[in-house]
Amino acid sequence: MTESAADLVRADGRTPDQLREVVIERGWSAHAEGSALISFGRTKVLCTASFTNGVPRWMNGSGKGWVTAEYSMLPRSTNTRNDRESVKGRIGGRTHEISRLIGRSLRAVVDTKGLGENTIQIDCDVLQADGGTRTAAITGAYVALADAIEWARGRKFVGQKAKPLIDTVAAVSVGIIDGTPMLDLAYVEDVRAETDMNVVATGRGLFVEVQGTAEGAPFDRRELDSLLDLALAGTADLTRIQLAALAAQGE
Amino acid sequence: MTESAADLVRADGRTPDQLREVVIERGWSAHAEGSALISFGRTKVLCTASFTNGVPRWMNGSGKGWVTAEYSMLPRSTNTRNDRESVKGRIGGRTHEISRLIGRSLRAVVDTKGLGENTIQIDCDVLQADGGTRTAAITGAYVALADAIEWARGRKFVGQKAKPLIDTVAAVSVGIIDGTPMLDLAYVEDVRAETDMNVVATGRGLFVEVQGTAEGAPFDRRELDSLLDLALAGTADLTRIQLAALAAQGE
Amino acid sequence: MTESAADLVRADGRTPDQLREVVIERGWSAHAEGSALISFGRTKVLCTASFTNGVPRWMNGSGKGWVTAEYSMLPRSTNTRNDRESVKGRIGGRTHEISRLIGRSLRAVVDTKGLGENTIQIDCDVLQADGGTRTAAITGAYVALADAIEWARGRKFVGQKAKPLIDTVAAVSVGIIDGTPMLDLAYVEDVRAETDMNVVATGRGLFVEVQGTAEGAPFDRRELDSLLDLALAGTADLTRIQLAALAAQGE
Amino acid sequence: MTESAADLVRADGRTPDQLREVVIERGWSAHAEGSALISFGRTKVLCTASFTNGVPRWMNGSGKGWVTAEYSMLPRSTNTRNDRESVKGRIGGRTHEISRLIGRSLRAVVDTKGLGENTIQIDCDVLQADGGTRTAAITGAYVALADAIEWARGRKFVGQKAKPLIDTVAAVSVGIIDGTPMLDLAYVEDVRAETDMNVVATGRGLFVEVQGTAEGAPFDRRELDSLLDLALAGTADLTRIQLAALAAQGE
Amino acid sequence: MTESAADLVRADGRTPDQLREVVIERGWSAHAEGSALISFGRTKVLCTASFTNGVPRWMNGSGKGWVTAEYSMLPRSTNTRNDRESVKGRIGGRTHEISRLIGRSLRAVVDTKGLGENTIQIDCDVLQADGGTRTAAITGAYVALADAIEWARGRKFVGQKAKPLIDTVAAVSVGIIDGTPMLDLAYVEDVRAETDMNVVATGRGLFVEVQGTAEGAPFDRRELDSLLDLALAGTADLTRIQLAALAAQGE
Amino acid sequence: MTESAADLVRADGRTPDQLREVVIERGWSAHAEGSALISFGRTKVLCTASFTNGVPRWMNGSGKGWVTAEYSMLPRSTNTRNDRESVKGRIGGRTHEISRLIGRSLRAVVDTKGLGENTIQIDCDVLQADGGTRTAAITGAYVALADAIEWARGRKFVGQKAKPLIDTVAAVSVGIIDGTPMLDLAYVEDVRAETDMNVVATGRGLFVEVQGTAEGAPFDRRELDSLLDLALAGTADLTRIQLAALAAQGE
Repeated sequence: MTESAADLVRADGRTPDQLREVVIERGWSAHAEGSALISFGRTKVLCTASFTNGVPRWMNGSGKGWVTAEYSMLPRSTNTRNDRESVKGRIGGRTHEISRLIGRSLRAVVDTKGLGENTIQIDCDVLQADGGTRTAAITGAYVALADAIEWARGRKFVGQKAKPLIDTVAAVSVGIIDGTPMLDLAYVEDVRAETDMNVVATGRGLFVEVQGTAEGAPFDRRELDSLLDLALAGTADLTRIQLAALAAQGE
Repeated sequence: MTESAADLVRADGRTPDQLREVVIERGWSAHAEGSALISFGRTKVLCTASFTNGVPRWMNGSGKGWVTAEYSMLPRSTNTRNDRESVKGRIGGRTHEISRLIGRSLRAVVDTKGLGENTIQIDCDVLQADGGTRTAAITGAYVALADAIEWARGRKFVGQKAKPLIDTVAAVSVGIIDGTPMLDLAYVEDVRAETDMNVVATGRGLFVEVQGTAEGAPFDRRELDSLLDLALAGTADLTRIQLAALAAQGE
Repeated sequence: MTESAADLVRADGRTPDQLREVVIERGWSAHAEGSALISFGRTKVLCTASFTNGVPRWMNGSGKGWVTAEYSMLPRSTNTRNDRESVKGRIGGRTHEISRLIGRSLRAVVDTKGLGENTIQIDCDVLQADGGTRTAAITGAYVALADAIEWARGRKFVGQKAKPLIDTVAAVSVGIIDGTPMLDLAYVEDVRAETDMNVVATGRGLFVEVQGTAEGAPFDRRELDSLLDLALAGTADLTRIQLAALAAQGE
Repeated sequence: MTESAADLVRADGRTPDQLREVVIERGWSAHAEGSALISFGRTKVLCTASFTNGVPRWMNGSGKGWVTAEYSMLPRSTNTRNDRESVKGRIGGRTHEISRLIGRSLRAVVDTKGLGENTIQIDCDVLQADGGTRTAAITGAYVALADAIEWARGRKFVGQKAKPLIDTVAAVSVGIIDGTPMLDLAYVEDVRAETDMNVVATGRGLFVEVQGTAEGAPFDRRELDSLLDLALAGTADLTRIQLAALAAQGE
Repeated sequence: MTESAADLVRADGRTPDQLREVVIERGWSAHAEGSALISFGRTKVLCTASFTNGVPRWMNGSGKGWVTAEYSMLPRSTNTRNDRESVKGRIGGRTHEISRLIGRSLRAVVDTKGLGENTIQIDCDVLQADGGTRTAAITGAYVALADAIEWARGRKFVGQKAKPLIDTVAAVSVGIIDGTPMLDLAYVEDVRAETDMNVVATGRGLFVEVQGTAEGAPFDRRELDSLLDLALAGTADLTRIQLAALAAQGE
Repeated sequence: MTESAADLVRADGRTPDQLREVVIERGWSAHAEGSALISFGRTKVLCTASFTNGVPRWMNGSGKGWVTAEYSMLPRSTNTRNDRESVKGRIGGRTHEISRLIGRSLRAVVDTKGLGENTIQIDCDVLQADGGTRTAAITGAYVALADAIEWARGRKFVGQKAKPLIDTVAAVSVGIIDGTPMLDLAYVEDVRAETDMNVVATGRGLFVEVQGTAEGAPFDRRELDSLLDLALAGTADLTRIQLAALAAQGE
């Protein structure tokens, strides 16, 4: 992005390449084997990791574990209330899509052999939404997952030398607004973005998922490149925040 | 209860007639017109009140408002994970039952004429469960409801002199454990109780709902009476806590 | 209740403390192991008890039996037709609630050890509704249950000395109308009641369930007491009618 | 059928061309505008007709009425209990098929112009099943329909000179068992039948529906002809029974 | 039919007793064990037969195989688009009815002992509809079924001497339009028909299913007879076309 | 990609940068306003465009049109049969995700003002699947959409000068297999790919969607760049094929 773009000030006072304040409250849940309440600004997502011995029947005897995820929004997490999917009796396409994305993102850094025949079920429930709920969910879910694995190691469900986690993973949204690429869009920015992209990357800076969508006009290769640059800088910041949270004394 | 019973000490150090620590965080939600995060010990329920102009079609022109409620538990709010009702595609009987109970309890203290043709939708989502989720939900929902009505009054959706709330309402569980009536059961107590009762009462000490169930052996009239005594003392305490929360400077 | 209240005459000619005519037709069904068509006035409920060897998987090897119940109303059992829940594709909250109530009420008088690893499924289908369908259902279901257990004893599925039934159980509604407590409300009374209570009690006069709801204004302790008195007198009458039906020569 | 076949005696003592005892109890329901509890032997079906002013939106202004039907079986109407379709959350193919058959059969004798813009909803609920539930349902539904139309005429919802019913309609099953065509199969006969046919015919002896199915071996033209003969004799008998019931003083 | 009727010319130039052009494209699918894309004029149905070893649990050890079928229409196979049943979340009565009809029709010519404990699942998906979709489906499904059985014989899943197919089966619609019986109705004819009948018959000329419905006025015995004559001539023609297709060099 | 990579020969004889044979059969459907049966090798998708006047209620009066899409697979379009989503009663996450992708992709090239208040519903039904079904669906759907708009222009539902289509759109999959980027993956290649990307681009070479997923190991920026190069060359080829099909004399 140009110098002038970097000097732009956003509605909440951030520069275009700045994350919102990110807070990770590890061990929020008294019950879950791993948990994190993560905030990206006003976006708040409760991530829990539930560990169980055994795997789905079709994986029995494979020697491999399984990690899966479900995403959901509380009905009044948003500006206006949405009907519950449990009341509607069916899960919407967007929910399905994000649940699958979270699961794939986490599995990309898991060595399922190292996990052994155990299952970790991640739940990401959006308590308050202000843009970037799926990226906050992935970033928080990684922390919950890491804690659940340590919990399991403590109980010897996972070997002392096993390394089920081969890397870290975090995610961030980027978008082009009035021609300027911006990092970590809040809701008011998200609805104005011409192009919207979610990038999931590992701590080593490799891509796990790149999902770019032209909301307004289609975008060219140069715009795509600038968004990818911005996103990788953002996920690098998020990685540092994740590692700091995990380094802090656990609950 | 006998002197000796009152001296009993429970697993968490309480006396039989003592509530767990109750904390009400008003205005938790940045979006909802009224909200409260309520804790009864480790039980945490997020209550939001969503105000909308207008009523369901069958009430059009009645001059009356409508208050309704939905209850739900996060999948890992409990000790072991439960499948989401949205994924199962149907709402279970227990969820239905509690949603209906919360709605009835609130409507018992609402003058729907005073509310005008407006709807308030209450959502009670259990973030963490340790017994008494329905009673915490009702107690917190009243606070969210009161705040939403004040919000509406501020925007003149409700008349300045209208008094849509004719009383306060709170709820508590009571039960008989090893022959001793006890107040506000935690989960480990709930599963041991021979008789389990939820009482919803107004600030004036009148009953809105009395739901007693023999979990083990049927109970006699004397036991019923001692439980009712205990419950009314508990709801009186809860009323004081509600009023203190509402008296504090709002968000 | 006061002398004068007891002298009141209701729309159908009853005194406040009088049941409607109760008729129990045992063995109505040619197929079910136990069955009763019960009438509380114009309310008619067909109760069947289906006996099967074995229990749900999670009870295998427990040495205990299982009793469960489902309640439903025919679409035109009511004054105006209701859509079928099978057509709507989901069971409503009220249906769920009553099914669970019936099941709990029956299990309160069953010694599941005495039943052995057998399952009894109760079905209560309301053929015609005029208030009190859930209380008629419970009262009739007990008769069907007792007959199914005798059927099973005859085939040696239940031991000759086993006593799976430890008491009888019956239920009745009570309510306060124009300030007067009344027993066994017909539909026109039910809609006018300020307070509505359903009481399930055993033949020995112990409570199994007490469910009181303020439909209009909340109620005080004295009103609650008078309703409980009335209800226990009613369930005592119902117990006599059940025992007489069971004493009569079976079909 | 041959002389010798006509002399055969069936398990319940009938000759091959004999109906079971048919009983029609008109006005069984205190609520419905028309109703009949019909028995074909042990098969018992409660048929109600619910009259409402107005038609589905797509028929508004057509000047025509609408008649539709739903069929269902109580869970223990059968020899072994079936799960409720409301609990399963979906209606089975058989239920759909029979509901549609009943609706078509009744509409075949209704002049919808004569009915005016009114809707009659027929419900046929099988209380006890012993073969022939769909044919009993159609036969009883006609009586309920006729009574609902007379009810509507009495309230002037239908014109005094209008003739919404242009004929009567009844239905019977026939089948070939051990080579012998038989009328009105009971359940034990139905399961043994090589060919099974349901015939719906008007009082004038015209066919409304002919549904023949080879359960075992395919059937030839001669067999088909003998079944049609038997069925038309059966529906003629049923027509007489319907007319006698309708001629009797109504409740 | 009279001489003059036979001389009538239909909208598409056919005589009353003439089939539309029938084309069977065997082996259309690269994946299915048997398949046929069948056209009856503009009606096009893709029929696939999926062979799997094993049978549903309730048939284990019976030594018998299982054949079942599902029918569906693409949303824009029809003149105006229909909502997808997957989106509506439930299968309609018509779809259920036709799926069951196809399954029964095929099973009528299958010796399940000869098939061994194997399952063949037939899928009939209507790509384009112009009347007669169920009859085209049955006719095409037989070809797919026959090919799947040959495929299984080639892999020795079915014995070399086993004859799982004891006859062929085909289906055709007939109807009375303006008093004239006509064969194989196109959609514009179908909607005008007073009586509509679908006949399923074997190659030997025996009936498997006869389903006649009075769409307008009820029909008499003479009309029924003329329709049956016409239908048997039609299924005989279809049998020849099936055999020719099966005799042609396979894919 | 390197010289040597370009010389690699794939299982089906293609070079890494070569599309499978693409065939577009315009006007396949006799009913739809626009339609195309498109093949990418053995992958065959039937795309129909259904035009209706009017828009969903929430768009009334906006002066804008609406384009939406649904994707589905026939149960035996795949190598082994999948259960129908209509039978399961719910749509899976993958189906939802692809339906949404197709809709977004088409809307990216539609000027909804130019379309006027009309709706075009696209249906993409996979008749046979061999990898790349979503990309074939998008590519074929564009042709069906273009034809439906011309149909509407011919009937003056769309203005003679209106240009509802502002560009063309096509899609292709790319992936890295054994380290080599490859275009338009067949199923056997898709399951082996370490990274899998679907790219939707306009005829002018702009991106509409970029969805890259690390199936095996995460990917770096250089790999991402090479996949994007390959994809844009592929969509350029597809654009030429679309334009040639649309230039050919219509049906």
